[in-house]
Amino acid sequence: MLTVNAYAATSATAPLTPTTIERRDVGPHDVLIEITYTGICHSDIHHARSEWGGQTYPIVPGHEIAGIVTEVGSEVTAHAVGDRVGVGCMVNSCRACEPCRRGEEQYCLKGHTLTYGAIDEDGTVTQGGYSTHVVVNDDFVVRIPEGIGLDEAAPLLCAGITTYSPLRRFGAGPGKRVAVVGLGGLGHMAVKLAHAMGAEVTVLSQSLKKKDDGLRLGADHYHATGAPATFEQLAGTFDLIVNTVSARLDLDAYLRLLAVNGVMANVGAPAEPLSLSVFSLLMQGRTLAGSLIGGIRETQEMLDFCAEHGVGADVEVIPAEKINEAYERVLASDVRYRFVIDIATLATHHR
Amino acid sequence: MLTVNAYAATSATAPLTPTTIERRDVGPHDVLIEITYTGICHSDIHHARSEWGGQTYPIVPGHEIAGIVTEVGSEVTAHAVGDRVGVGCMVNSCRACEPCRRGEEQYCLKGHTLTYGAIDEDGTVTQGGYSTHVVVNDDFVVRIPEGIGLDEAAPLLCAGITTYSPLRRFGAGPGKRVAVVGLGGLGHMAVKLAHAMGAEVTVLSQSLKKKDDGLRLGADHYHATGAPATFEQLAGTFDLIVNTVSARLDLDAYLRLLAVNGVMANVGAPAEPLSLSVFSLLMQGRTLAGSLIGGIRETQEMLDFCAEHGVGADVEVIPAEKINEAYERVLASDVRYRFVIDIATLATHHR
Repeated sequence: MLTVNAYAATSATAPLTPTTIERRDVGPHDVLIEITYTGICHSDIHHARSEWGGQTYPIVPGHEIAGIVTEVGSEVTAHAVGDRVGVGCMVNSCRACEPCRRGEEQYCLKGHTLTYGAIDEDGTVTQGGYSTHVVVNDDFVVRIPEGIGLDEAAPLLCAGITTYSPLRRFGAGPGKRVAVVGLGGLGHMAVKLAHAMGAEVTVLSQSLKKKDDGLRLGADHYHATGAPATFEQLAGTFDLIVNTVSARLDLDAYLRLLAVNGVMANVGAPAEPLSLSVFSLLMQGRTLAGSLIGGIRETQEMLDFCAEHGVGADVEVIPAEKINEAYERVLASDVRYRFVIDIATLATHHR
Repeated sequence: MLTVNAYAATSATAPLTPTTIERRDVGPHDVLIEITYTGICHSDIHHARSEWGGQTYPIVPGHEIAGIVTEVGSEVTAHAVGDRVGVGCMVNSCRACEPCRRGEEQYCLKGHTLTYGAIDEDGTVTQGGYSTHVVVNDDFVVRIPEGIGLDEAAPLLCAGITTYSPLRRFGAGPGKRVAVVGLGGLGHMAVKLAHAMGAEVTVLSQSLKKKDDGLRLGADHYHATGAPATFEQLAGTFDLIVNTVSARLDLDAYLRLLAVNGVMANVGAPAEPLSLSVFSLLMQGRTLAGSLIGGIRETQEMLDFCAEHGVGADVEVIPAEKINEAYERVLASDVRYRFVIDIATLATHHR
């Protein structure tokens, strides 16, 4: 067992505080990773505060993990000490069901094992990347290619793959018109990735406040959804809309922005049910889809794509002691575009 | 001009009555068809009663038309006198937009011309197939292969293509589990077609009342959606659900019946908006789609497929004087599975 420094929430209402946690011994198929950077995902806040179901406390969030391999188990062949690696939202799955065999572990029929707050196969509760080290089964560790900084790579493990997967599945590329709804952590990755894939990219954001950013990130067009003319002007325009916002929105209004056979892919998850007129789907053969992160093989493909195209997340690196402040700023949409914890600042805290 | 016998509604509340209407002279690209059989589609009732927007009266419904060519225009090469032909929901479109050029005239960006109750390019209001003859532009006339009776072919022109198109688009075939929601005019065609494509077919109907029929039509399984156990038992089962009902239903409950990456394709159009939890789509990468009839090329493909596989509609042939009675029976779901008007009974009525 390895005792390591971490930041944890001790209850749904407590701020995160420094602590130590135990990591299991490195088994034959395990990789020990010294974490360098961990991104702060909005869902970390939902989990830490038990907003998506009750959690076991203390809980160490963090599923956008980048670091260096410091030890590998006897059976590990894909990773070696010194490798730059990443871990995303999952650390295990059944490997036997049809989706797992297809490489879609995120849809494992027995349920994938979340990187934190889940019961692992040894019966322990998983703990995430707000921590100096993590031990992960080698099948759930991906390589971070040279050419991407580990800080800008960390958010790719969730925000990157979550947007890459539907962009690929629904054919973003040259000659395709792609709209990205919301310019937050997920949205800014969707813009960069769709642009790198060669699509014509439009940002649909509440206001024009971040327009300069959006164009710099790779968008060709930028429209305010708060302006009523936007929905008239853009009717029938897009082949694909990637909706990254979790707020309630008027699905029918957005569906009308789709071209014939267009797809609106949702990666945000509004807590409340939305209203949908089936006519909005019928009239132009439109489709409304959902997409959840991506499989391990696709995550590696995404990282290789990012390295090839010079794509990384726009990050604001913070010391661990600023995690609680960062949470408040995430909730206020005051981040461009992802907080990343410098895990070196955790290495030396009190014991 | 040709004066022909027809059955028409003279107001939203009047029963249909015998009348005569004018058909245009056969132009260079026109085909004159002597109609043999016309199916009664539920949407005929909606249109006749102005339930889907106000109509111009008198209105002659009917967009499931089968008959024999009796005259062709000078430029017509695809059809000849004596040919067995059909006309479906559309009689024109712009031919120039991207969907038209792709053969998806149903999604014409300028709007396709409905077979009845629409303004045709010459400014006249189109009138449908409850009539002895119709003049239609040759591009919107399809061939009915030998081997399908004209009576059982008529409903293929709407109910057939409407279900064939999403079955094809979303990959119904061997090894695929397809559910059909509702066993009415559309549903019974969906069962026959999905079975002929080689899929494993399940009917999801309110009760088990039509179970024997369903199995005879080609279903492998039949479940009552009124039984709460059905939704637990079938969770995660289907690759494709074709929803043919226009009633309000619990979308989230049906989406949970889909396997990973499964598609629920809607061809019925509930008048009221439905409630949808986006989580239902996210969790297994599921998709909710809409589909509207099909293009002309695909309609021909469907007819050829039906001839090859011995598929026709199950019809109850009625004389024209029973149209109003048939409407009431359609509304009471008392038809197995499509009324078809024997147009010969119209030929000799009073003038």
